Amino acid sequence: MEGKPVVAVTMGDPAGVGAEVVVKAFEAAREYARPVVVGDASVMADAVQICGSDLEVRAVDSVEAGLEVGDDIPVLDLGNVDDIEYGVVREDYGRASLAYVETAIDLAIEGAVDAIATAPINKQATRLAGAEHAGHTGLLAARTGVEDYSMMLVEEPLRVTHVSTHVPLREACDLVTTESVGSTIDVTHGALRDLGIEEPSIAVAGLNPHASDGGLMGTEDDAEIRPAVEAARERGIDAHGPESPDTVYVRAAGGEFDCVVSMYHDQGHIPIKMLGFGSDGAVSGVNVTVGLPIVRTSVDHGTAFDIAGEGVASETSMVDAVRIAARLAAARDR
Amino acid sequence: MEGKPVVAVTMGDPAGVGAEVVVKAFEAAREYARPVVVGDASVMADAVQICGSDLEVRAVDSVEAGLEVGDDIPVLDLGNVDDIEYGVVREDYGRASLAYVETAIDLAIEGAVDAIATAPINKQATRLAGAEHAGHTGLLAARTGVEDYSMMLVEEPLRVTHVSTHVPLREACDLVTTESVGSTIDVTHGALRDLGIEEPSIAVAGLNPHASDGGLMGTEDDAEIRPAVEAARERGIDAHGPESPDTVYVRAAGGEFDCVVSMYHDQGHIPIKMLGFGSDGAVSGVNVTVGLPIVRTSVDHGTAFDIAGEGVASETSMVDAVRIAARLAAARDR
Repeated sequence: MEGKPVVAVTMGDPAGVGAEVVVKAFEAAREYARPVVVGDASVMADAVQICGSDLEVRAVDSVEAGLEVGDDIPVLDLGNVDDIEYGVVREDYGRASLAYVETAIDLAIEGAVDAIATAPINKQATRLAGAEHAGHTGLLAARTGVEDYSMMLVEEPLRVTHVSTHVPLREACDLVTTESVGSTIDVTHGALRDLGIEEPSIAVAGLNPHASDGGLMGTEDDAEIRPAVEAARERGIDAHGPESPDTVYVRAAGGEFDCVVSMYHDQGHIPIKMLGFGSDGAVSGVNVTVGLPIVRTSVDHGTAFDIAGEGVASETSMVDAVRIAARLAAARDR
Repeated sequence: MEGKPVVAVTMGDPAGVGAEVVVKAFEAAREYARPVVVGDASVMADAVQICGSDLEVRAVDSVEAGLEVGDDIPVLDLGNVDDIEYGVVREDYGRASLAYVETAIDLAIEGAVDAIATAPINKQATRLAGAEHAGHTGLLAARTGVEDYSMMLVEEPLRVTHVSTHVPLREACDLVTTESVGSTIDVTHGALRDLGIEEPSIAVAGLNPHASDGGLMGTEDDAEIRPAVEAARERGIDAHGPESPDTVYVRAAGGEFDCVVSMYHDQGHIPIKMLGFGSDGAVSGVNVTVGLPIVRTSVDHGTAFDIAGEGVASETSMVDAVRIAARLAAARDR
């Protein structure tokens, strides 16, 4: 890789805050990467107006052309949005936002870009558009042919990965097996090394209160999680646990561990969002899909239809998403 | 009530950090209350030595006598510890620590004290001692004849209560019913009014990711939690939910709600501990048993056998426990 990593930034659902956070993040993102937007040029131009930005949108038809636009915002223009209606779930918007992601994935697979950072899509809209995978992660896994992957959330110094995410809590309990915990430890370990941490220290959260307290509250901690941790240690991974869930995130935020493998969505999401709140009150945090053959990060917020089109959405998470995408891409290149 | 509230402070397990955090907290606690320790005078004297405190321990045989000791630390001396061995689980220590709590409960029931603040006990030790209820909360509920109660954790401005606490996560899912959520909303509402909040705003967390996202991830949010929230609103309670668990705690910490009713132990404990970490890094936070006929608060940490006897345990949580006990007692007295 010569120069800063090239990061494809997908625009997200046209009715959401995606375009405006991309505009607001753009100059700061250029500190870390050569970003090229994959989206619709007319929506991006509208976002520039909304945000009162001095930048101009330049529609391009290739990534290469996008790298030659100077100070402008290069948009690989799929031209798939006819009119702009903020805050509305529309089938055509769902189809458009899927196209941005699919295009970006293909660019990453063929090596035209070094990483992808995605703005939020709307799952109701992508479902209307007939998507088999309504969310980013399923789509990424399917299109890259991967089975073992995990969602890592980063709000430094805290990082968390998940054994499962968008499933009912009862089903999440069923999904806690020695095999699934072990594979999540492995993808977590690989991702932390990609982040430049040579010998990562990984905490594995328990499932039950106090990690069952020696079997007094549930069986999974000793029957499923502990064997996975022990097997990981035998593979040379510095894994610890099962640790009591109510304190392990505070310990990790204090520097004791590089990442906490979480047993379900909210176990990992709640502490990340609390830490983001503690730091500056704004939406921040970055979502990294780990275990893929390509580098992909995402903002850690949704389409925010209630404030879309107002130019008030915070760009912090998008700047972080591009920054971490660039760092991961550079590490893979070494 | 004349003067500051009288708070019985139980010493906790003699082998733990209870006595030392009481000693270290004592002067600060007197700002808010007239504290009287219920414990063993010899253990308390040892803690004074360990902490290098200037205070002296005064053994008394009644609360009344304890209020007349001037600057000394009054200890209602049960004289039930023969020798001190820090960090060791012992049956006699379990029996001793249960006696402190039982005595304090009886003093509160008969009105000799206005509130109880408890130092940590060790459940292994109380089980060895044959306790039917190994922990404080079960003991309190049984001895005061109460069925609907909840654990409220306070790390201001965030407060959380729980539909269930020390049960396996799968069982916690089963315990989320319209009835249990409704009764937890009610005890939460009463406790917030006791805290002086006239029209409390109560968020009710969902059980599943994104509160099921309209039924896509689980059934309990719409089938059990939503009807409980609607019924509470019909009773005139300003209840909201089910709210997405991953963001509701941040919203409450930002001032949007006075309390979050949590569906299981870690859902409520993780954000409280993260917020405590964000504020000063020390152990803080207070545990309030709400729904009882008496006022009871507790420190939000355990016996910490690994550091007991060293005088290094933080007293922050104990000071807060006495402060909030005094505030609740004063509010009930009005």
